[in-house]
Amino acid sequence: MVSRPTINDVASAAGVSKGAVSFALNDRPGLAPQTRQRILDVAAELGWTPSPRARALSVSKALAVGLVVARPPEVFRADAFFPAFISGLETVLSRRGHALLLMVAEHGDAATYRRLAREGRVDGVFVTDLQVDDPRPALLEELGLPAVVVGPAVEGDPTPTLGVDDAPGVDAAVTHLTGLGHRRIAHVSGPQSMVHGRSRRTAWERALRAAGLPADLCVEADFSAESGAAATRELLDLAEPPTAIVYANDLMAMAGLSLAVSRGISIPGQLSVTGYDDTEIAAHLQPSLTTVSTDVVAWGRAAATRLLELIGSQEPTPVDLPPARLVVRASTGPAPGLPT
Amino acid sequence: MVSRPTINDVASAAGVSKGAVSFALNDRPGLAPQTRQRILDVAAELGWTPSPRARALSVSKALAVGLVVARPPEVFRADAFFPAFISGLETVLSRRGHALLLMVAEHGDAATYRRLAREGRVDGVFVTDLQVDDPRPALLEELGLPAVVVGPAVEGDPTPTLGVDDAPGVDAAVTHLTGLGHRRIAHVSGPQSMVHGRSRRTAWERALRAAGLPADLCVEADFSAESGAAATRELLDLAEPPTAIVYANDLMAMAGLSLAVSRGISIPGQLSVTGYDDTEIAAHLQPSLTTVSTDVVAWGRAAATRLLELIGSQEPTPVDLPPARLVVRASTGPAPGLPT
Repeated sequence: MVSRPTINDVASAAGVSKGAVSFALNDRPGLAPQTRQRILDVAAELGWTPSPRARALSVSKALAVGLVVARPPEVFRADAFFPAFISGLETVLSRRGHALLLMVAEHGDAATYRRLAREGRVDGVFVTDLQVDDPRPALLEELGLPAVVVGPAVEGDPTPTLGVDDAPGVDAAVTHLTGLGHRRIAHVSGPQSMVHGRSRRTAWERALRAAGLPADLCVEADFSAESGAAATRELLDLAEPPTAIVYANDLMAMAGLSLAVSRGISIPGQLSVTGYDDTEIAAHLQPSLTTVSTDVVAWGRAAATRLLELIGSQEPTPVDLPPARLVVRASTGPAPGLPT
Repeated sequence: MVSRPTINDVASAAGVSKGAVSFALNDRPGLAPQTRQRILDVAAELGWTPSPRARALSVSKALAVGLVVARPPEVFRADAFFPAFISGLETVLSRRGHALLLMVAEHGDAATYRRLAREGRVDGVFVTDLQVDDPRPALLEELGLPAVVVGPAVEGDPTPTLGVDDAPGVDAAVTHLTGLGHRRIAHVSGPQSMVHGRSRRTAWERALRAAGLPADLCVEADFSAESGAAATRELLDLAEPPTAIVYANDLMAMAGLSLAVSRGISIPGQLSVTGYDDTEIAAHLQPSLTTVSTDVVAWGRAAATRLLELIGSQEPTPVDLPPARLVVRASTGPAPGLPT
């Protein structure tokens, strides 16, 4: 006896998740038209017919969502973002009976997403660490897997993202420094291949230009403490070093600040320093770190809410995340040579 | 559509029997190591992945393991341990086709474990943040859910645990300080309700007693930067303050070190400080932090291996984790008043 085709058969033949088949067959929004058509074609080809039982199965969901972290373990472990973000996700997911499936893949490789979709293990995924020209949003569209891309929007990229805009925070840091009389304000950036590395650098450039200052002192680093120290060394060795450095994260700022102190440079007397993240230790350093604070836990909550809405084909609730804001502490002060 | 490779494909490509492939892929004993490796290599090359549905049906497994983190979000986010530990877990789990289901529960409450067991969502769990007299090991025993308890062993508690022993690291820190002539060596501990808070304190006490010194200067804190600063303030305000402080983690040590510096106390000239964790920033502070380093990634790998063995009813592979070791940096030096 040939058994009748199931949603699973349609899903694996079409190379999409069970959830996507369910969406297409139940005519629910959220799929790309060509994906929907392909699924319907495959279903017709296999002779799939709806039955009350099949429909019941089709809506029995995995009740799990996936977070694929596209980082080597060393980078994952150093970043203050993930534990806070995951805490936020969990607040919403656990309340709604969804589990979080976590995978750390060295490269956010396509195989991981394809497997997740094929196995029907998750109803949707979060995409983090968006790269410039990242292939993943298109892949997920193709797989029919509901996805929330987490991070700042990319200029010229239509992918909808959900994230805190870095710009106001970086802008506030630069404005704070120009207000203190600084004119040579450098930036130690994250990797320019990463969206949040690029968005923070762009915000620094714009803020300097808006203040009529040149944006010519930028060293690209990789968010690690080591790279932050090396970039700082490079800036301090210039014939005319900056009087202030805006770092793309706290870890690099703390390492840079410490390197300057080890050279006998007084902070903030001779050099002002700002970070980004407001990690727990930032307030307790000596001097304490002026930095940009974002509510990452709230961001995680919003991302989980949005993904569950996508999965349930509900109208998205407008997201109102508190904007990034500057926390002024002791590592910034008047530019050297100015009356205090 | 390209069909996915089967066990047969792997067997013929590797020139072995289907049975041998099955043994290798299920990590069962009885194959020569080089044969096992060749089969795994061929399987990886062909893009073979375990079919969770087929396996789930045949052995009725969830092909997922759970990590229930028993902490409020704020504590989870501040701890350097979890990202590194999860990285280690993932290295093993992803290769074996198991997913990691993560839950952050404010209290490691029984309901979460009962639900996991009832729903058959996981084949086993990791238990972290063991409390003194923790009810969870007995509960998991009752539920019949294979579990690996992660952390140092508890004296007088028969629960088998898998973890790096804190004692040699703390002992090395105290020995290093007594060797530098320190006689008043304080401890800022973690919560005594937590096993790793207690085991580090016990190790500090023993090391001092072994050196013929009183273990009378201990302030209990909660592993947070804030609590580390407060405990340090208390110690420095004593009529006869310590000349060295052994902290139970880096976060408290960094906050304590900074507090001392803000009071004009020179480190290590007037006060020596040690941490525990060897977080990324520790090497880059000014002064850099002498601390205890444990290979948490290896620990995660070992915990995942052990849990999969328990689930598969296999003999446990003896675990040989590198012991905690002291990394001497610039925050420790000769006791004040001694010739340097």
